[in-house]
Amino acid sequence: MTQAQGDTGLLAPGWADSAASSATSDHAYLRALLDAEAALTRAQAALGLAPAEAATAVTQAAGSGTFDVRSVAERARAGGNPVIPLVADLTKAVGEAYGPYVHRGATSQDIMDTATMLVAARALGLILDDLGRTERALARLATEHRDTTMPGRTLTQHAVPTTFGLKAAGWRSLVLDARDRTTAVRDALPAQLGGAAGTLAAFGAYGASDPTGLPSAYARELGLRAPDLPWHTLRTPVADLAGCLAFTAGALGKVAVDVLTLSRTEIAEVAEGGGGGSSAMPHKSNPVRSTLIASAARRAPQLAATLYGSLAAEDERPAGAWHTEWEPLRDLLRLVGGAARDAVELAEGLRVRPDAMREHLDLTQGLIVSERLSAELAPELGRPRAKELLTRLASEGRPLAEAPELADVDLDPTHYTGSAGALTDRALERR
Amino acid sequence: MTQAQGDTGLLAPGWADSAASSATSDHAYLRALLDAEAALTRAQAALGLAPAEAATAVTQAAGSGTFDVRSVAERARAGGNPVIPLVADLTKAVGEAYGPYVHRGATSQDIMDTATMLVAARALGLILDDLGRTERALARLATEHRDTTMPGRTLTQHAVPTTFGLKAAGWRSLVLDARDRTTAVRDALPAQLGGAAGTLAAFGAYGASDPTGLPSAYARELGLRAPDLPWHTLRTPVADLAGCLAFTAGALGKVAVDVLTLSRTEIAEVAEGGGGGSSAMPHKSNPVRSTLIASAARRAPQLAATLYGSLAAEDERPAGAWHTEWEPLRDLLRLVGGAARDAVELAEGLRVRPDAMREHLDLTQGLIVSERLSAELAPELGRPRAKELLTRLASEGRPLAEAPELADVDLDPTHYTGSAGALTDRALERR
Amino acid sequence: MTQAQGDTGLLAPGWADSAASSATSDHAYLRALLDAEAALTRAQAALGLAPAEAATAVTQAAGSGTFDVRSVAERARAGGNPVIPLVADLTKAVGEAYGPYVHRGATSQDIMDTATMLVAARALGLILDDLGRTERALARLATEHRDTTMPGRTLTQHAVPTTFGLKAAGWRSLVLDARDRTTAVRDALPAQLGGAAGTLAAFGAYGASDPTGLPSAYARELGLRAPDLPWHTLRTPVADLAGCLAFTAGALGKVAVDVLTLSRTEIAEVAEGGGGGSSAMPHKSNPVRSTLIASAARRAPQLAATLYGSLAAEDERPAGAWHTEWEPLRDLLRLVGGAARDAVELAEGLRVRPDAMREHLDLTQGLIVSERLSAELAPELGRPRAKELLTRLASEGRPLAEAPELADVDLDPTHYTGSAGALTDRALERR
Amino acid sequence: MTQAQGDTGLLAPGWADSAASSATSDHAYLRALLDAEAALTRAQAALGLAPAEAATAVTQAAGSGTFDVRSVAERARAGGNPVIPLVADLTKAVGEAYGPYVHRGATSQDIMDTATMLVAARALGLILDDLGRTERALARLATEHRDTTMPGRTLTQHAVPTTFGLKAAGWRSLVLDARDRTTAVRDALPAQLGGAAGTLAAFGAYGASDPTGLPSAYARELGLRAPDLPWHTLRTPVADLAGCLAFTAGALGKVAVDVLTLSRTEIAEVAEGGGGGSSAMPHKSNPVRSTLIASAARRAPQLAATLYGSLAAEDERPAGAWHTEWEPLRDLLRLVGGAARDAVELAEGLRVRPDAMREHLDLTQGLIVSERLSAELAPELGRPRAKELLTRLASEGRPLAEAPELADVDLDPTHYTGSAGALTDRALERR
Repeated sequence: MTQAQGDTGLLAPGWADSAASSATSDHAYLRALLDAEAALTRAQAALGLAPAEAATAVTQAAGSGTFDVRSVAERARAGGNPVIPLVADLTKAVGEAYGPYVHRGATSQDIMDTATMLVAARALGLILDDLGRTERALARLATEHRDTTMPGRTLTQHAVPTTFGLKAAGWRSLVLDARDRTTAVRDALPAQLGGAAGTLAAFGAYGASDPTGLPSAYARELGLRAPDLPWHTLRTPVADLAGCLAFTAGALGKVAVDVLTLSRTEIAEVAEGGGGGSSAMPHKSNPVRSTLIASAARRAPQLAATLYGSLAAEDERPAGAWHTEWEPLRDLLRLVGGAARDAVELAEGLRVRPDAMREHLDLTQGLIVSERLSAELAPELGRPRAKELLTRLASEGRPLAEAPELADVDLDPTHYTGSAGALTDRALERR
Repeated sequence: MTQAQGDTGLLAPGWADSAASSATSDHAYLRALLDAEAALTRAQAALGLAPAEAATAVTQAAGSGTFDVRSVAERARAGGNPVIPLVADLTKAVGEAYGPYVHRGATSQDIMDTATMLVAARALGLILDDLGRTERALARLATEHRDTTMPGRTLTQHAVPTTFGLKAAGWRSLVLDARDRTTAVRDALPAQLGGAAGTLAAFGAYGASDPTGLPSAYARELGLRAPDLPWHTLRTPVADLAGCLAFTAGALGKVAVDVLTLSRTEIAEVAEGGGGGSSAMPHKSNPVRSTLIASAARRAPQLAATLYGSLAAEDERPAGAWHTEWEPLRDLLRLVGGAARDAVELAEGLRVRPDAMREHLDLTQGLIVSERLSAELAPELGRPRAKELLTRLASEGRPLAEAPELADVDLDPTHYTGSAGALTDRALERR
Repeated sequence: MTQAQGDTGLLAPGWADSAASSATSDHAYLRALLDAEAALTRAQAALGLAPAEAATAVTQAAGSGTFDVRSVAERARAGGNPVIPLVADLTKAVGEAYGPYVHRGATSQDIMDTATMLVAARALGLILDDLGRTERALARLATEHRDTTMPGRTLTQHAVPTTFGLKAAGWRSLVLDARDRTTAVRDALPAQLGGAAGTLAAFGAYGASDPTGLPSAYARELGLRAPDLPWHTLRTPVADLAGCLAFTAGALGKVAVDVLTLSRTEIAEVAEGGGGGSSAMPHKSNPVRSTLIASAARRAPQLAATLYGSLAAEDERPAGAWHTEWEPLRDLLRLVGGAARDAVELAEGLRVRPDAMREHLDLTQGLIVSERLSAELAPELGRPRAKELLTRLASEGRPLAEAPELADVDLDPTHYTGSAGALTDRALERR
Repeated sequence: MTQAQGDTGLLAPGWADSAASSATSDHAYLRALLDAEAALTRAQAALGLAPAEAATAVTQAAGSGTFDVRSVAERARAGGNPVIPLVADLTKAVGEAYGPYVHRGATSQDIMDTATMLVAARALGLILDDLGRTERALARLATEHRDTTMPGRTLTQHAVPTTFGLKAAGWRSLVLDARDRTTAVRDALPAQLGGAAGTLAAFGAYGASDPTGLPSAYARELGLRAPDLPWHTLRTPVADLAGCLAFTAGALGKVAVDVLTLSRTEIAEVAEGGGGGSSAMPHKSNPVRSTLIASAARRAPQLAATLYGSLAAEDERPAGAWHTEWEPLRDLLRLVGGAARDAVELAEGLRVRPDAMREHLDLTQGLIVSERLSAELAPELGRPRAKELLTRLASEGRPLAEAPELADVDLDPTHYTGSAGALTDRALERR
């Protein structure tokens, strides 16, 4: 137990040891910062503003393994961001000849924002992969259980029957919504380049005749979108990330809270493939994946709120709003990355118990189809008398099947699933 | 001061007496609930599931002025939503013959969600109008001040020069981002129709051979999008509203915090067209519009968080998450509606003071172009020595123009605005 | 349906028509603002800074019913707060002779903050009454069901037995925690008086030799605490309100989510006294009180966050942070006031079903006492072999009672409630 | 740059390398978990429920350095918490003889919650130390600048004069409020011990005749408060931490936003002792400490909201709400710990520039005392005419001193600080 190791997710079983965690670690950010610096010199070289040798030298130095993330983190304190000490280290590593080309013309925020976009792009890619696997597993569940009838529940009470197929199709539609929003955001993530106050002026001072071409060249080096304007205090990309990540967390959260409910000992209509155990109670099989997803869904909205709050960033670089973004955005990427990983396992491993569902349809002794009875008895008895009759029968606590007044009505709950099948089919057509 | 009147915004100068306030009042919601009920009967009549006379009767009754919003609000408590008492009132108003066609086959949530979408569509329309006026005014400011040089400020300190044109163009680009996101969300707002548990089963019980056509017919009646699936617990539309409204609040908030900063007594580079007064201090002209916009931007993120949190809604109707949405969504619509109204006034009335900007460029006695000097001296002196020189000069507190070492350098801050003009031009091309 | 009426809670069945709603309405705030103005003149009269007749005249005018809250709300927009137009109206109502004594020396924030504290004090009083009724009802439930055994549930699964008495005692302890925190905050709510920038300077200009005595005199008039310092931007009282209200919402929310769970159709171990109905499904009895309380608990934390965020208020009066507080604080008072009202009904009306609890203890066929078996078998078999045995038995799906290996062990779940009774007794001693 | 290292705060210059960071690292939590396990065995030994040798063996093993935090973090995923794998490791480390006494009778949450309280207690201690140093530095500033006049600013505009002493005294009073709330919370942090479902049943199964004495014995071992009840789902301690930490962040945030404002290039009435530099602009001295504190104050409220939201925790252990607490609580401790560290530096190093303050008092050419003039002219001219006169003079833009109508009035702003001095003295009496 050495102090030198940093944090690796002891408090975060939801994302510890995940691909998203690696993609968003301090090391991943350091790597992205170095990538951003190297690309900056290469872009200048590509436009003839720096010698090709400088580009090579900076790229090589940036790619070497000599940077100490802890030291950079600690020295970041003085100026309030890690780019300042990292530029010092990188300049030294590049050496005297080409050192002056490191970070030339840029401001710390150019590098920090660009690195953040690189990290976000990678993490969103992982998330999209897992959303894809999740939706495919949910599609299989919906197809397989298209006609598996189960109680529809509203405000905790049995309402009318539904199908597990429709439920799974609904889950999938949310996952597809998440995928669509996340894809759109990922494809629009821009590089950042503006210089000290967003005018690109320093690049002119270093010899560029028209510095406005530099941001595109820079973005090309990195596989990011070219920005329309420097966005130091126009934080659309960060707000869009906040929105799609909060949405994805909530979409997966819906699946999780349903599974948690349906897994209850008394309900047990579904079970996670591999429930978590308990040391003292060997029988327990806890819905751990759902629990961790639900936990991510509880945290993501407030993290997103913090990011939305940073839109109101004064001046050309704000004194607080920008710094505020760093950790919450990373937290969101990790949490959602972890939740997407858990969603794959959850969806692929979910065990469905049609027998339990069927059994529960009878728990209300026929009342689960009372809506149908209301509809069918109304023409004959009038709405008020039909309602009166059903209310009386409901209060008597006897099975409706035994009521002579209902002798001619179809009380089979599996016959009252309405358009569940057709809706499921239609939903599954979406790709 | 009669108790019978309700709340009209005494605590909300940001939205009191605004079009958005009227469009989202209890009365507007009641009207939308009635519109939703009437459309439901009409849609059933259009598909032959109800007599045309029923559609007429319900539409007429719904359009009458006989509903008491306070009474509905109070009776909503028993069942937890206002649709239950309103259906009773409407059924009574329609009369015995066609009363049974009121709300037939629907669930309270169908009506409540649909009404919410109607209200949201109208409020977003108002917001979009005001965003349009705002961006046009900002475009004029950016054009007019394309070359008005001012200090670029980072972390509260002068950094390098920028232009007010670029600043205004940046504000406008955020407003356009808000417009684009809001437009997309508004155009996708769906009607809600699923019946008790989202299977459309009751419509079958009432005679529809294929109830899946009903939601589209219903949506057509209301000018909303036809839903892919009933979305009782698939809350994408609400989350999307949360996202675009939080974004819009933040986008306008950026304008506001900049104006607040630039309006400070010591800075006074801009002033609101009609500042708010003070009873005791006749000289004060407070930036009230910006203050109220900034206040909206402080509240919106947490309201959006609450809505994102409701995505994780269990079952076919959740016990809490749905009810949680109602007030915060209305609050967001109002706040952003009020902020957009204030943004129009702010942008159209903003007074810009180029002289003050020009004067402030000299506050640092030349150091505002120190970046340029670094760049230009570096080739000659090397980066370290150039930096050393400038640091020394900075610490001496004398005007740089008096330093003999800098005799040959252009210290005019208006000559160091980089690509501000070109960036402004490019940004203004966006429509 | 006249437009002139304002909002009365159509979207808020949780607080519509409640005492807390009346106590926090626009009218209540207007009344409190007038009370604050009248007290200010009286306090000055008490110290000899104004004629007694002025105090009487202002108090009488303020007490008259001639103020139009809608008009004040609309005119509040110009200056950004309702005190400015209200002072104009009150000054006019007082008349020429004593009009100059209205609001003399004060700033809008003095009146607004003081009125807010008056409203908060009254609303907290209502909340405390309802917390008192709730805790007494919970104490009765805990006493009555001290030995009613039920399944303890962790991560949705049966764990080991517990008692309903211990559960109710736990609920009560949270309500008492809420009471204690709320009482402490209420008793410390201060009046606000500082003048334009918190120096009390104007009172000196109007003749006070030592204006520092005025705030105490003012507080005495209103039954509020005398402030240590003007707190225009030292927002401890508002933050403390945020904290105790978020806590209370969450404390009641715990009761609600437990009742929601235990009310599920499959569990049905408790039921609300008067469940909410459904128009189409006559059998449904929804846990509406719990649903509305749970909804309040979902909203309160984010409202509190907005208030905590306003602590960072720049200068002597901030441009946004203060305005931001007004609606969220009122929302919190209302939401918690409504939730406390619902909690009384919930606790007083709760129906407990010991039979259902007893029955569920057997659902796991004895495994609910597996922890006990682990403990008792371990000395004999060793921990690993004991665990192995139980895991095997658990997986076989047979009742443990039939396992010959367990012939000598007490498998009765009602015998394995540990110290539940003693803990309940101890918790009930707290007053 | 080895992947094996974990995160050390690269994105968090606010808390990287701070004592609070060490006290809340994964390692610190692992240490606290082990301390909690060891204390559990010792407490059982103290009551005669375990052999003294077991207590010694567990304590020794727990104190050894053989636990691999990364491995524990990774294996935590299966069961959803780190206690399960850690107990396995510890049991193995203790060896066969006394291994069975490890974690005996406890549930994972007992250990996790207790460890969290240990970590919180230590972190709050550090925070309290830094709040103490901060308030003492602020007291010195208030004393020294008791009579340093400066502009009072409201809604960004000069209002009336105030003093820097009163401002600093106000800051200090907030810090003292934070200290008082934090101290109260720290002193009440309880140990957690309840067993699987909070009934202490397993301890009976292991031989305790009255297990209710065990929690106190356990708490004594750890220096924590003995709990009234097991609080697995009665989360008062966590909510109280949320409240005091959000408060403290906001209290320090107030100081920070004031310093940020007063540090602006145009204002420059204060400066941080050691401002942060910029690589490209050698003249810049950024208020980095304030920026980082302000950033913490922007994040803390939403983190606290997440914790308040976890109060509504269903059952005897919730499926999500509990897991949700872990990271946000640690984040809050770290953020506030870092902010308190920065506040010490800020307060101890703050440079105050009375000359700049004095100079700014003249910026409005006398209008900063217009309130006084209103008051003094009113008796003579009547309120309306006095206001009219001042409004006219204000609009003319000439120095008031040149207005013949004001020839007899004292226009010196340093003579219009009201009771600022007396209020400062009184505030400084608070200890």
